[in-house]
Amino acid sequence: MTNQVILLDFWPSMFGMRTKIALAEKGVEYEYKETDPWVKTPLLIEMNPVHKKIPVLIHNGKPICESLIQIEYIDEVWSDTYPILPSDPYEKSQARFWGEFIDRKFYDPSWKVWGTKGEEQVAARKELIEHFKTLETELGDKPYYGGEVFGFVDIALIGYYSWFKAMEKFGEFSIEKEAPKLIEWTKRCIVRESVIKAMADPDNIIQYACVFRKSLGVE
Amino acid sequence: MTNQVILLDFWPSMFGMRTKIALAEKGVEYEYKETDPWVKTPLLIEMNPVHKKIPVLIHNGKPICESLIQIEYIDEVWSDTYPILPSDPYEKSQARFWGEFIDRKFYDPSWKVWGTKGEEQVAARKELIEHFKTLETELGDKPYYGGEVFGFVDIALIGYYSWFKAMEKFGEFSIEKEAPKLIEWTKRCIVRESVIKAMADPDNIIQYACVFRKSLGVE
Repeated sequence: MTNQVILLDFWPSMFGMRTKIALAEKGVEYEYKETDPWVKTPLLIEMNPVHKKIPVLIHNGKPICESLIQIEYIDEVWSDTYPILPSDPYEKSQARFWGEFIDRKFYDPSWKVWGTKGEEQVAARKELIEHFKTLETELGDKPYYGGEVFGFVDIALIGYYSWFKAMEKFGEFSIEKEAPKLIEWTKRCIVRESVIKAMADPDNIIQYACVFRKSLGVE
Repeated sequence: MTNQVILLDFWPSMFGMRTKIALAEKGVEYEYKETDPWVKTPLLIEMNPVHKKIPVLIHNGKPICESLIQIEYIDEVWSDTYPILPSDPYEKSQARFWGEFIDRKFYDPSWKVWGTKGEEQVAARKELIEHFKTLETELGDKPYYGGEVFGFVDIALIGYYSWFKAMEKFGEFSIEKEAPKLIEWTKRCIVRESVIKAMADPDNIIQYACVFRKSLGVE
């Protein structure tokens, strides 16, 4: 079967970065279509009619939405190379748990820390720091969340790395001071070819966040 | 290997109902421990230190949290009987997508429609009806979300059935009027032995919701 793979994505998205990393780890070639999610293009609406959000992975014409679901899909379809999820059901459930944690708990304060001000920002920073500490505790002394190997949770979290500098600048805190082992972990991840290629430049993200802050009335 | 299975759950939880249904479909015997999530028992804190929420599935001493993750775990561990998720990666990704949709979009308005009043309730009802219609469209003319078989999305959604009556009573609307095919689908589901055993009595849920409404200052 021919594998025609298209990715609808927007360069600053930490979710899209996950999917790009997973595809790169598997060595899957794909066509990248830059898709600003604030402009609802006909293709985006057709491929993700429910959420109308990026990233959308289109495999042989069929769309897969939601980045964590995309990673699982990629791992299952291209199963003969680099396993992303553990094969053991218990370890797999724990990887899924932390992926969910990042999406449900981490995401909200991670943008509010740079996208709000005043009390809302203070509360977001407090919450975000707690989550950084929780994630650091979960990492423990392992080199990766996947243990000895770079896996599902690593991919789920490292997508945020491009935004760390913006979080620190506008949130006025140091992630390294709060979670030094987590920063050590990022250093191991960001030298991987798949990660280097997927990540947005943190300085470009700061510029993007500046524009966004103005549109939100924060600046 | 001995299979010691314990479920920490609270009777009105639509999430716990999912896990009970999945275990029943697989014919897994387990010890049920009624666990009020508002009372943070030492066992609950030990088994789900991050969220401190039910349901928690404990398999041979190891906890699995989050109901959708529990269903996947149950399906993988007891893989030799009744398959819950489709085996095809694309169909599996779509099942996961709708499970996520129910958790991320449906849950919030589904409690606000009975747990709030005024403008907040009106907005919740509007949103909830939209989601009911979206879910009905996704069902289409299939007997189940799993196609010909009762599967992952069916389990994810039917857990809410016990709450339908409370939603309708306090939200002052008719689900059947808004999404008649969805109600036809519930009728097919609620005759299953696994569902009958798992579901809370809708009238008991109404009584529970009454108590909750008082504590929230809605009544």
